[in-house]
Formats: sequence, structure tokens, C-alpha cells
Amino acid sequence: MNSLARRSLSVRLPRSSLGGIRWSTSCAPSASSFATPSFPCVDAHAARESRIIASSVSRFSQSSSPRSSSTDTGPEPPYARPSPLSYNTYHHPYPLPLTYGATLPSFDIAYETWGTLSPNRDNVILLHTGLSASSHAASTQLNPTDGWWEKFIGPGRALDTNQFFVVCTNVLAGCYGSTGPSSFDPTTGERYATRFPVLSIFDMVRAQFSLLDHLGVQRLYASVGSSMGAMQSLATGWLFPERVGKIVSISGTARSSPGSIAMRHAQRSVLMADPNWNNGFYYDGLPPHTGMKLARQIATITYRSGPEWDQRFGRKLRTPTQSTSPSTSGELSPPRSPTLCPDFLIETYLDHQGEQFCLKYDANSLLYISKAMDLFDLTLPAIEELGMNLPSPPSSRSSSSSSTSLMSPAPVSVVTSSKSHPPPLNSAPHLPDLAAGLRPLSSTPTLVLGVQSDILFPVEQQRELVDALRMAGNSRVSYFELGGVWGHDTFLLDVLNVGGAIRGFLS
Amino acid sequence: MNSLARRSLSVRLPRSSLGGIRWSTSCAPSASSFATPSFPCVDAHAARESRIIASSVSRFSQSSSPRSSSTDTGPEPPYARPSPLSYNTYHHPYPLPLTYGATLPSFDIAYETWGTLSPNRDNVILLHTGLSASSHAASTQLNPTDGWWEKFIGPGRALDTNQFFVVCTNVLAGCYGSTGPSSFDPTTGERYATRFPVLSIFDMVRAQFSLLDHLGVQRLYASVGSSMGAMQSLATGWLFPERVGKIVSISGTARSSPGSIAMRHAQRSVLMADPNWNNGFYYDGLPPHTGMKLARQIATITYRSGPEWDQRFGRKLRTPTQSTSPSTSGELSPPRSPTLCPDFLIETYLDHQGEQFCLKYDANSLLYISKAMDLFDLTLPAIEELGMNLPSPPSSRSSSSSSTSLMSPAPVSVVTSSKSHPPPLNSAPHLPDLAAGLRPLSSTPTLVLGVQSDILFPVEQQRELVDALRMAGNSRVSYFELGGVWGHDTFLLDVLNVGGAIRGFLS
Repeated sequence: MNSLARRSLSVRLPRSSLGGIRWSTSCAPSASSFATPSFPCVDAHAARESRIIASSVSRFSQSSSPRSSSTDTGPEPPYARPSPLSYNTYHHPYPLPLTYGATLPSFDIAYETWGTLSPNRDNVILLHTGLSASSHAASTQLNPTDGWWEKFIGPGRALDTNQFFVVCTNVLAGCYGSTGPSSFDPTTGERYATRFPVLSIFDMVRAQFSLLDHLGVQRLYASVGSSMGAMQSLATGWLFPERVGKIVSISGTARSSPGSIAMRHAQRSVLMADPNWNNGFYYDGLPPHTGMKLARQIATITYRSGPEWDQRFGRKLRTPTQSTSPSTSGELSPPRSPTLCPDFLIETYLDHQGEQFCLKYDANSLLYISKAMDLFDLTLPAIEELGMNLPSPPSSRSSSSSSTSLMSPAPVSVVTSSKSHPPPLNSAPHLPDLAAGLRPLSSTPTLVLGVQSDILFPVEQQRELVDALRMAGNSRVSYFELGGVWGHDTFLLDVLNVGGAIRGFLS
Repeated sequence: MNSLARRSLSVRLPRSSLGGIRWSTSCAPSASSFATPSFPCVDAHAARESRIIASSVSRFSQSSSPRSSSTDTGPEPPYARPSPLSYNTYHHPYPLPLTYGATLPSFDIAYETWGTLSPNRDNVILLHTGLSASSHAASTQLNPTDGWWEKFIGPGRALDTNQFFVVCTNVLAGCYGSTGPSSFDPTTGERYATRFPVLSIFDMVRAQFSLLDHLGVQRLYASVGSSMGAMQSLATGWLFPERVGKIVSISGTARSSPGSIAMRHAQRSVLMADPNWNNGFYYDGLPPHTGMKLARQIATITYRSGPEWDQRFGRKLRTPTQSTSPSTSGELSPPRSPTLCPDFLIETYLDHQGEQFCLKYDANSLLYISKAMDLFDLTLPAIEELGMNLPSPPSSRSSSSSSTSLMSPAPVSVVTSSKSHPPPLNSAPHLPDLAAGLRPLSSTPTLVLGVQSDILFPVEQQRELVDALRMAGNSRVSYFELGGVWGHDTFLLDVLNVGGAIRGFLS
């Protein structure tokens, strides 16, 4: 009756031909002597902390940094070190009133440029970054290392520096030279930390326009951005319709969805639960490196796609950390059993992404910018709740300039189908509200580019944006959907298609 | 030149007609007096810990539990309390050899049943649970509270108790009555904790079959499961082809993908980083409730879908926690500014899901079962790496019984298309390996049911399973794809379609 007892495990055959590391019983504890286990994946957090402390002591003892004041005795992460003068900084000495009521007394914006400003100052492209990028979009003389969009910027590239003067800023609330929570509040001399006010995407764009004013740039040839940068790109044309010639929105949205809020919420929750976060006041102590690492792991999952991982990693196992001598050809790696720590290559990939990021970026910057993304919503009711008026689109400026007419419901036209997809079968109920809110963009040529494998800004949101712009009366909306398995990160990788679409649209 | 200075924020109009809570400036700090902020969403973790300690002291002072020994002075979570005898327990007094080499000296399996065992004992349906469910799939006389599949089990329901005798177990490694890491090791008298051996889905199924042996059930009418239960359902038919009549696999897979491993890795990482986890030895102290809450938040994101949240929550704001008196009709809620803590209803929903779960389930059980899901892989090379032989499918049993012939490559037939979808354009490269590994299932009627909005076990994996089963020679594969917005959780919610498909297949 007891077939289980009869069914014993069959003989284990070594199968070196399979190449991978084999699960094996040879290291496993026997029945009654389960050993007390160790968890190198957890010990890694404490080890990282020890390294931070050690490097901090070492750096502090050698440091002659002008920022090493008595309020700044903690370990300085790279972004807080004195600028290597690898970028320009615009200091705005006047107050900036913010969307949610607070006012920044003054601020800095770090920026870099590529190409040559034309005599008429009419060839400027404002390039917006994603959440965590710096102004270093491409290599410069000041900083010859590759930038985050290196292959998209240069002579003959998507942003052609033979033709355009490209400006990229570190975003307000960031930590790469622009004012953010890690900056010192000029009114108190202390770091803002979480006393920094919650910002909106609008506030970031207004800060960028004060830089453009400073540069004497009245009108942009185009505003270009991906991910959060696409939100900024849309907000740029929305806030200043007369000052923006064209808009490029890649893998973005005009209304953050609850799905994307959920994924950012998970990251913020994990980060803020790290005791080192200390309500945001960690600058004199240890940074919340573990929370940052865990948050970045979650973020990384939303940046790529399962199909890509299946192609790249499949179910390959990680290589053992404590290898003996390098194995020669045909030699088997030492067999081991699965553990509760990472076993698969996909796990060590995520681990590595988290490790790489966790000390390069300010945790509070992540929180503020992540929240600004959640808050972004160009539907008319949301705009009205902010007490903001809709700017007039340039074409309707002469005929209707009173705020009364702007607040009236926008004319809702029939949804036109794009060339690359049929009209939506079940339009989102907020589509008319979004179309009404997008009226300021109704006459600005706009390129929308979406990726079918994107789970953070899914293709449905791209179609929604296109439909809403067309409902708002915009007859110059170009829309492309890209396939492939790169997910949200496609905008960083697909030079051929993303670059080609931009180049065609801008020319 | 400075258009920013000219462009002031417009007058803020109260818009009570919008119904929602308005962002407002009235509570915001002024420019130079940013107040030190508070973070109730973070304080919640400490508050929860205080409640745990208080309830533990109170429970311990009143307790006469036989389990309250000197090694058990910590707070007892609900699952560790003495059984209310709401389920049956089968004690297996013999050793269970495990897939990865260790052996459990003995084990318990908690189970519940519905319906009446036929005289021939040929009407048994073994129902497998998802990761965290108990054996309480539906209400019983012993436990009249609703079960997790209440509407699917009963007279005339999907699992028709007029016809079938349904058995559901708490899975091995679980914490609801079956032996798991929170159980006491009989050889030492101490809790296993993370000395518990890593298990496979096969091990869980073997433990279930020792229960079936005990019940005198030689052959199942059907094996039914969803999510991890679908893995078990497939493993049941795979391990014991002659003892399983039909298989139902709902939103499962025969090969865990790196995408789903990534999502479970994120959960395990967050949980294991909680200092309370203490390498798994927390039973005498405080449980890792914060890590569990954060892990459950991530899991919840993978269980539902963005479109559902857009329908259910949209961008609605959460209601303020410190409300004054209930507002009468037309009265506005007190206005507030956005914070770094949750502002949106979707965030409080995730918070709530985490809070509800974090003390109901054993953290170590979550880790072990989550890992077992990662390890599940029925491709032939993976089976061979385990040193396991492929069982013979019933139909080929008489013609080929030697292990040599079983190890030879399986015949790969042309992929047949299902009625509900076209053949895959780009088959996964592992499809032939999966088909070869699934040979033991080649003659078992199998229902595969997938959900198009599922991001954890995406529909591509369902199609892959169907294609592989057909390639393996199974001509009795039924396949349904469901639409809707419920994502992975569809199997818990869609009584009409999920229930209907099962009922049709079983009859």
C-alpha cells in the first residue's frame, strides 16, 4: 500500500555534459544532524556596512573637503563629494514657489551641454532624465566618460549635435549637483533631509526654465525625455506651450497609474523601513544602503521583462562564490545544494544591480522624485485640484485668452486610430478628463513612443496618451510601438529604433 | 526674460464638487521654516512591534499551552498555537528522503475533506493549495468559517461533493499543521527553523501520497491546483502517472521562469533583511513582521493587475487617518499636502494586505515554499540533474520499462495549435526539453487554464505548457485562456469561468 516507501530515489548519475552546476547530495546534512545554516546573502549587508565605515574613516582622516563640517561627519557617498567640475551649475538666487505650497528659497541646477548654440538661440533641445540619472547624458570634454545616452547624442545621432544644442540637467530634488534633500538649506545651514518639500514634475520643469532664461533661450526646438523624463517633456510643453516647438515622450505617461504607484510604493516602503534611513536624517551617520539595495532590486524588476531574462539567464545557476582553483576545461564545479540565498543567475543579477546603486544615489532623492512621479496627473480634475489654470495652446491664444473659457470643458473629438494599432475597445473612463487636461498640448507636434514589453509604463498607457492628445485636437501626434524584450529599459538600449524614431521626428 | 518670475501660481479655487481630498497649501510649511517631519507609515512598524510584545506578555501570563516550554518563550503567532482540532492530522512515523539529499525523520500532514469517499475509493480529488493557504479550502463541520475556495467546493459546485471526495492538505514546509520550519525536530526537541532542509515540489507531493496511502486511496480521480498548487498538480501526475486520472493546472507552470524567480527573490530578500529574522531563529523572540509585511506588499503586486487597480482605485487618495468628526454630506475632508508616506488608496491597500498577512504566516515557511517554487522545473535536463528517472506514462508502461529507453530523447512531434490561440511564433528554446521532460504526463487528460492579465504566471507560460504537453504526445489537453483584470488571483475569484471549466473537465 505504501508506494512512497517502495519508491526510492534512483541512482544519481553525474552528468557533466550538461555544463551547469549540479544539485547534489554530497554537501547536504544527514537526517538528524541538520547543521546551523549560514546566510552569506544576509551577511552581505553587514559586510557592506563595515566597508562603508572603513572607507569613511579612511576618507575622513585624509579629507580636506570644504563640506566636511561639524555637521557632516558621516561617510560621504560619491554624489555628495565636492564637484569635480565635470558639469555646469546655474545658481538661482530667487525663491521658487512650489506646486504644493512651499517655497524653495533658492536652488542650483547642474547641467551639461552638447553642440553649439545657434546665433538665434533657436536650436535648443532640452533633454530630461529618468529618475536617477545625472546631467551626464553623453561624454564631454570636462567629463569624457560615457553618459547614460551616449549613443543617442552626437554628430549624426538621434540628437544631432551638428544641428542641435542639447541641454541636460540634473533634476531638482536630485543629488548630482542640483538642489535636493541632501543639499544645505541656506536659511539654516543644515541639510534639508526630509524637511525638503514634496515637489511636482511641474516644479522640476519650472526650475529648468529658469536655467533656460539664464541661458537666454526663449523657445525650445524640442523637449525630449524618457520614463520620468517623458513626464517632464510633456509638462514642459504643457506649462509653456509657446516656448516648446516639439515634444518627445518615450515610455512615459500623462497620468501615473495605480499600477506604477504600487511598484514605487513598494520601493519606498522597503527603503524607509531601513533603520539607517532614520526619517531621512542619515547624512551624519550611515546611509540606508540595505534599503536602497532592496528598493533597487524591485525597481530593476520593473525595468526589464521576463522574456528578456529567459533569453539572457534562463534558469542558469549562479557560479559559486567560494570557488577553489579556476576549473580547467571539462572540470566540474564543486556540486552544491540549493539554499534560501540566491541560487539562480537572475537573483545575483538583481543583487548586483542593487549593490551597484545603493551607494551611488541619495535615498531621500529617490523618495522625493519617486513621489513626484506618482503625483503626476494631467487630467483636468487633477489640474483643477491643484488650483492651476490651463495655459492656452499657441494656436488658440489669439482667440481665447480668458481663464473662464479655458476652464470650460474641452471639445471632445472622435478618437482617431493610430496607424499601428486599432482604437481602444474599452477606453479608460478617465480618457475624456485626460483629453481635457491636455488641451495646452493640442497644437504641439508630439512623438509618443511605447514598448510592448514595458510593465512599468505599459503600452496601454502610451495608447491612452495618444488617444487623449488626439481627442484634445492635436492632429500632429506620431505614435510608434516597439516590440522586443527589453521592457522599460528599451529607451536606453534600442539605438536603432528609438534613435531612428526621434531623428525622423526632429528633422 | 525670466518668464518663471512672471508666471505666478494662479489663485487656488476650492473645488468641493470634485469630491476627493484636495491637495492644499494650508498645512504646508513656509519657505524658511520646513518643520521636522513625521512618518506614521514608518512608525507603524514600531507600533506593531509594541502590540506584539504586549499581546505576547498577556498571552504568556495566561497561557497553559502544552507547547509553552522553556525553549518557547516568544510571542506565539496564531499558526503556532495548539490546534483547535479544526483539521485532521496524519502522522507519518517513517523517514522521508528528500530531493536534495536530506531526509526528514518523520512528518505530519494536516488535511481536511469534503464529500463522501466511495466504496471503491475511486472518487478522490486531491486539491493543492497556493503558497500560503491552509488545508481549509471550504467550511466544514469542524471549522464553519469560509475557506479559501469556498465557492468552488460543495454540492453542484466545481468540485462537486455530491460526486467527489475532496482532500486538501497543508503543504509540507507550511505552518498550518503540517511539518515545516516552525515544527519541532523530533531528533533534537528544538524547532527546525532554518535547519529545515530545502524541499522540492516533488517532496510535497510524496508527503501527500503517504497520506493517500494511509487513507487507502490507490488512485486519484483528479489532481487539481492553482498557482503553486498547479505545480503540485502536475508533479502529482508526473511522479505517479498510474495513480492520477486527470490533472487540472490553473495559472501554474511546469518550469519556473526567471521572471517569477525575480519576484520571489525580491520578497525573500526583503524578509531576510529584517533583523528580527535572525537567520531564521526568531521563534523565541519577535517575528520578522516588518519584513513579512514588505514581502507581502510585493507579492500582492504580482497577484493582481494594473488595469484592475485602475478600475478599483484609480488615483483616489486615501482617507486621512486622524479624521475629526465624520463629515456630513457636502462637508469637505480637511485638506492636506502630499507626503513621502502613502497618499493614494492603492498604497493603503498594499499596506493593508501586508499588515493582514505579516503575523498570520510563518516567515520561514514562506522562504522554503517560495524557494521550492523557484526550483520547480520539469524539463528533461533539470530532471536528469536531480538524478531522477522519468516515470513511464501508463500507456507506454508495458512496452518500455527500462530506464535506458526512458532516458533517450523523447519523440518531438509537431506543435499543434490549441483552439483558442495560434501556434507560438517564437517558441521558447527550452520547449523541446520541456516536452521531453513531460513524457510521464503524455497520456493523462490535462486541463490547463491561464489568465491573460496574470503577470506572475503569464499566459505565455500557459501556452508553453500546453504546447509542451502536446509535443510530448498528449492528445487530451484542454486549454482555456481567461480575460478580465483579476490577474493571478483570478483562480480565487472567477467562480463562473474557472469553476465552469473545471466542472466541465471533471465530468
